[in-house]
Amino acid sequence: MTRKAKWLSYLMAALLLSPVVFTLSGLDSPLFGQEAAVAEEAAPADDGVSAEMFTVNNVWMMVATFLVFVMHLGFAMLETGLTQAKNTVNILFKNTMIIAIGLLTYALMGFNLMYPGDFNGYFGFAGWGIFTDDAGITSAYNVGYTYWTDFLFQGMFAATAATIVSGAVAERVKLGSFLIFSVIFVAVVYPVIGSWKWGGGWLDAAGFYDFAGSTLVHSVGGWAALAGVIVIGARTGKYTPAGISPIPGHSMPLATVGMFLLWLGWFGFNGGSVLSADPGLTSFTLVTTCIAAASGIVGSTVLSWGISGKPDLSMSLNGALAGLVGITAGADSISVMNSVYVGFIAGLIVVGSVMLFDMLKLDDPVGAISVHLVCGIWGTLAVGIFSMNPDHTVGAQLLGIAAAAALAFPAALVLFLALKFTLGVRVDKEEELKGLDVCEHGQEAYGGFQIYDLR
Amino acid sequence: MTRKAKWLSYLMAALLLSPVVFTLSGLDSPLFGQEAAVAEEAAPADDGVSAEMFTVNNVWMMVATFLVFVMHLGFAMLETGLTQAKNTVNILFKNTMIIAIGLLTYALMGFNLMYPGDFNGYFGFAGWGIFTDDAGITSAYNVGYTYWTDFLFQGMFAATAATIVSGAVAERVKLGSFLIFSVIFVAVVYPVIGSWKWGGGWLDAAGFYDFAGSTLVHSVGGWAALAGVIVIGARTGKYTPAGISPIPGHSMPLATVGMFLLWLGWFGFNGGSVLSADPGLTSFTLVTTCIAAASGIVGSTVLSWGISGKPDLSMSLNGALAGLVGITAGADSISVMNSVYVGFIAGLIVVGSVMLFDMLKLDDPVGAISVHLVCGIWGTLAVGIFSMNPDHTVGAQLLGIAAAAALAFPAALVLFLALKFTLGVRVDKEEELKGLDVCEHGQEAYGGFQIYDLR
Amino acid sequence: MTRKAKWLSYLMAALLLSPVVFTLSGLDSPLFGQEAAVAEEAAPADDGVSAEMFTVNNVWMMVATFLVFVMHLGFAMLETGLTQAKNTVNILFKNTMIIAIGLLTYALMGFNLMYPGDFNGYFGFAGWGIFTDDAGITSAYNVGYTYWTDFLFQGMFAATAATIVSGAVAERVKLGSFLIFSVIFVAVVYPVIGSWKWGGGWLDAAGFYDFAGSTLVHSVGGWAALAGVIVIGARTGKYTPAGISPIPGHSMPLATVGMFLLWLGWFGFNGGSVLSADPGLTSFTLVTTCIAAASGIVGSTVLSWGISGKPDLSMSLNGALAGLVGITAGADSISVMNSVYVGFIAGLIVVGSVMLFDMLKLDDPVGAISVHLVCGIWGTLAVGIFSMNPDHTVGAQLLGIAAAAALAFPAALVLFLALKFTLGVRVDKEEELKGLDVCEHGQEAYGGFQIYDLR
Repeated sequence: MTRKAKWLSYLMAALLLSPVVFTLSGLDSPLFGQEAAVAEEAAPADDGVSAEMFTVNNVWMMVATFLVFVMHLGFAMLETGLTQAKNTVNILFKNTMIIAIGLLTYALMGFNLMYPGDFNGYFGFAGWGIFTDDAGITSAYNVGYTYWTDFLFQGMFAATAATIVSGAVAERVKLGSFLIFSVIFVAVVYPVIGSWKWGGGWLDAAGFYDFAGSTLVHSVGGWAALAGVIVIGARTGKYTPAGISPIPGHSMPLATVGMFLLWLGWFGFNGGSVLSADPGLTSFTLVTTCIAAASGIVGSTVLSWGISGKPDLSMSLNGALAGLVGITAGADSISVMNSVYVGFIAGLIVVGSVMLFDMLKLDDPVGAISVHLVCGIWGTLAVGIFSMNPDHTVGAQLLGIAAAAALAFPAALVLFLALKFTLGVRVDKEEELKGLDVCEHGQEAYGGFQIYDLR
Repeated sequence: MTRKAKWLSYLMAALLLSPVVFTLSGLDSPLFGQEAAVAEEAAPADDGVSAEMFTVNNVWMMVATFLVFVMHLGFAMLETGLTQAKNTVNILFKNTMIIAIGLLTYALMGFNLMYPGDFNGYFGFAGWGIFTDDAGITSAYNVGYTYWTDFLFQGMFAATAATIVSGAVAERVKLGSFLIFSVIFVAVVYPVIGSWKWGGGWLDAAGFYDFAGSTLVHSVGGWAALAGVIVIGARTGKYTPAGISPIPGHSMPLATVGMFLLWLGWFGFNGGSVLSADPGLTSFTLVTTCIAAASGIVGSTVLSWGISGKPDLSMSLNGALAGLVGITAGADSISVMNSVYVGFIAGLIVVGSVMLFDMLKLDDPVGAISVHLVCGIWGTLAVGIFSMNPDHTVGAQLLGIAAAAALAFPAALVLFLALKFTLGVRVDKEEELKGLDVCEHGQEAYGGFQIYDLR
Repeated sequence: MTRKAKWLSYLMAALLLSPVVFTLSGLDSPLFGQEAAVAEEAAPADDGVSAEMFTVNNVWMMVATFLVFVMHLGFAMLETGLTQAKNTVNILFKNTMIIAIGLLTYALMGFNLMYPGDFNGYFGFAGWGIFTDDAGITSAYNVGYTYWTDFLFQGMFAATAATIVSGAVAERVKLGSFLIFSVIFVAVVYPVIGSWKWGGGWLDAAGFYDFAGSTLVHSVGGWAALAGVIVIGARTGKYTPAGISPIPGHSMPLATVGMFLLWLGWFGFNGGSVLSADPGLTSFTLVTTCIAAASGIVGSTVLSWGISGKPDLSMSLNGALAGLVGITAGADSISVMNSVYVGFIAGLIVVGSVMLFDMLKLDDPVGAISVHLVCGIWGTLAVGIFSMNPDHTVGAQLLGIAAAAALAFPAALVLFLALKFTLGVRVDKEEELKGLDVCEHGQEAYGGFQIYDLR
């Protein structure tokens, strides 16, 4: 075990230190002084907006970046709350590493693999990261924000795709394998798919519309989550010959904190996707976002209450997230009234989807596949159905959904299978029953509390 | 039980789906395209401010909106922390539903019942909600923000009024009845009272001043909380022949998180009530807000420490909130020095008030009536005493306090009594002792933790 | 005990009410009306920036202020999570009091002891607080923000210095003595050192550079923490003849919340230290800040994983904070690539430092000295090594480090020793073992949970 851990640590170090190695090779040594120039120059707006407008746009985008950062804490709390106490340290560790890995790999290559746009490649290859490729770039990237704001906002987005997977494979995934998966997924798969639309690639040319990422972020993460769950299998004891044996989460306050922080973060996720502080568009987007979240809560609550006869908090929380994922593709182009429908239907869908995946014995402890993949698809389609912009068509939306699926799912499947047959992707049954915290981390999450095994 | 729950779920569905029904009647069908125009147009400032100033004003108001949203998480955590573990799911569920209900009902009718102003009605009737009434409204609502920002900021406010009630009736209120109360209170009572002052109604004309809502939000919620506590009665076992038997909260970390998040939210609650980003007014308001909160902590801590001989964390937390509620009516018009007094006195008041309500056997698990009603009244009076603006008088302030009381308290009393004699407002004694989580939700908040009954 | 508590409460009251006493002496009575004028005037920019630019700068600085406020919740959660359940109320109480004390004392004297600059005194004496000294100050303090924003932003900073100490002396410090220490440290020691550089004093003239406070905030707090730990001694049972007996924290979710909120707060801590919304500088600063945090996580994780053979969540969390403290002195002047090094090395340092202090039997429950003092020194030196600005030299940085040490450490030592020989600084052994919550506060943090003693 210790030997394996050491080996994994060396591998992690190698992967994560690659920026250092890369740079030490001397490629960017002349850039240091130039970066200074970039940072020090007064930020001029170069596209016809005043310095004041450029500054307020950039402030808005930085605020949006903070909010998307908060989503990482939200995901960590939601996943922690909806799983068992004995795996808490493991989940918190994964979520802490994902933001670190996400930002570093996105800086190394993801950002320039995805942007700048105006190319039509299928592999999204446009450059080599902010460490090495910023020589000629002024701080005013466009009218809405600086180069640095752009990187940080998009980097926070990129890391969320891996976080979605984390929840679905929780409580039995092998830590090292998950981290390696995250590195590759955030560094390559997510940015390539993103480049097709947001980088100005072929999907963009084909008329596909995805305002803030129902497909490009949520379904991409959701497909990977589905692949992970298929390869790794269900938690021991979840599906028994006698039927489904629910494994309740260990802290509903943490789960609720997670939902509220994710909603808060979505103000930046959607509001920031306007890419400027345009008053009408940003505030309209916030209204549709909130109305869809509220309707999602109502939809999932009413349906689950009706089915089970009890008001189910987990379903209400997932309903909010379902509504948020659902409106994400069209938050700027669906009317307030229709955002009620989009959110309400997402709330209904998430309840049905959670039940369906349980019938299929695909074990997803936090409902990530239902929320992010299924409602991500719904939200993308909803643009075709409800958008106020006549250029948005159901056909183009279906093309985008299919394109994302066609790369994200097989890529994640191959990655997880490759890891399965080398390092392994699943902890031993004994470890799983004893808990990952004690077995993998040698540490308990709740010192001094009496915790008994629920099963 | 299941039958009753189903019935309630149908009722909830009917109430909450009313926007959908309403719209399907065809009233707003021609608006969809027009909304598109609203959202897409570049946002011009139409009242003599530059596009840049309008944009920065709107950014500030959106940030303030996010912060008021955070207050809902703050309320949820404070209420959860200060109550028993066995009722946690119930409290989190209520708080999740309130924000959903609050936004949807405010969109349906509350917003236009309260605004736009310049009318003098006693019933505040001005329109029928943003779903149907936005045809002629451009995105630039005034110099400070767009129509959408205005709705969302005010909608977040509206929902807090119901949240205040939630804390006071916690641990024994019947879930369905509470939700019905919230729908009606947020949809009708809160906006009508708000229209009297903020909608430009008769209280405004009478010289009453309430900057950010010590009366219009906090005492309105507080009066409803008092009515609820009177109708529903104390928790079983709180007041015994042998005296008061305190029921300690189950998580002081969550309660502390709640206080800090509420303080954070108050930056938006008060800072946003400037209704623009005016540098002097917004930042002055933030200083008085923080100084009052700090003084409130000192006041409540010193007094409760002196009385009990022990530093009492719950009282320190309530002291901060008391100071915040206290300064809310005059945060823009009371000097920094006097904000020390306002906050310090609020901190003293909250300690005395909590003891007084316990003597009166009015059981308020989180001290909501003391914080929001009593300190709300104090803060409103403080404007008359300390304001730097000579137009603010004690007389007008008393009129406003009395007017809010005269509608909020009887309206809430009638609502709670009507619910008491139909659906019932209180769970069975057995349910109360066993806990609402297991009995109403079939779910425990802390899976795997050993929790024993404190009583 | 009760008698002592009463005595302490009177002392606290006297100290904390001093602003009131001070003012009642009549010094500021003519100012109230003038403050009104300050707040009411439209905020003109008086240094050649447009009203729009002044407004957006001020909005940015207010947002930064909110984020630094959030750090206080972050510190509270980190400290709570990494210590034992039986001392939770005590820790939450301390952290609630610190923000109240910090803001009030900074308003009374700290702010004007530290600012406004352009003086060269060694005692930083420039005025007597915002309650009494704002007669001639317009709301536009400079191009970046108003007088009020400046006070609140700097006041939030000041309070963090005392919070750092709180973590190091946790679980055995006497509450009253700690509060008295905090009052004096925040009111006098912190602002005097700050005035040397940020107030335009002699260290500034000597070429020392500290962008956002690796030295002026973090090492100043860290030196005081070291002095406190030396005077107060280790927790009972930590260092036994048989070796070091670790005392695990009681809630890793709370500790993780703490780290994420501190990171979030650092966006304001560093981003706000630009003192305007300059798009290039602010966003560049955010990128170096985040990259250093991410690298700090990787550095501490790889090293601690390599050493112990297990991925250690506490070390990963401290690695993030180490990276953040490390980049704080040069976040605006170190390239993105070099911020990887600065953060990574900080992550390595914090692991070694925690082990070293344990070998020296200096018991620091949360690693505050390693994170804030040791990495604060590293970050200050890093400016001399990596800065893109040729004016920054290792020599001047060493001077600044030494100067801060030369006042902060002896001052804190004298304060703690004076308290030790008068009121005492450490609780009885029996109290320590039973827990401060029950003994000092008469209140348990987790009502109803079964908690057993780990030792």
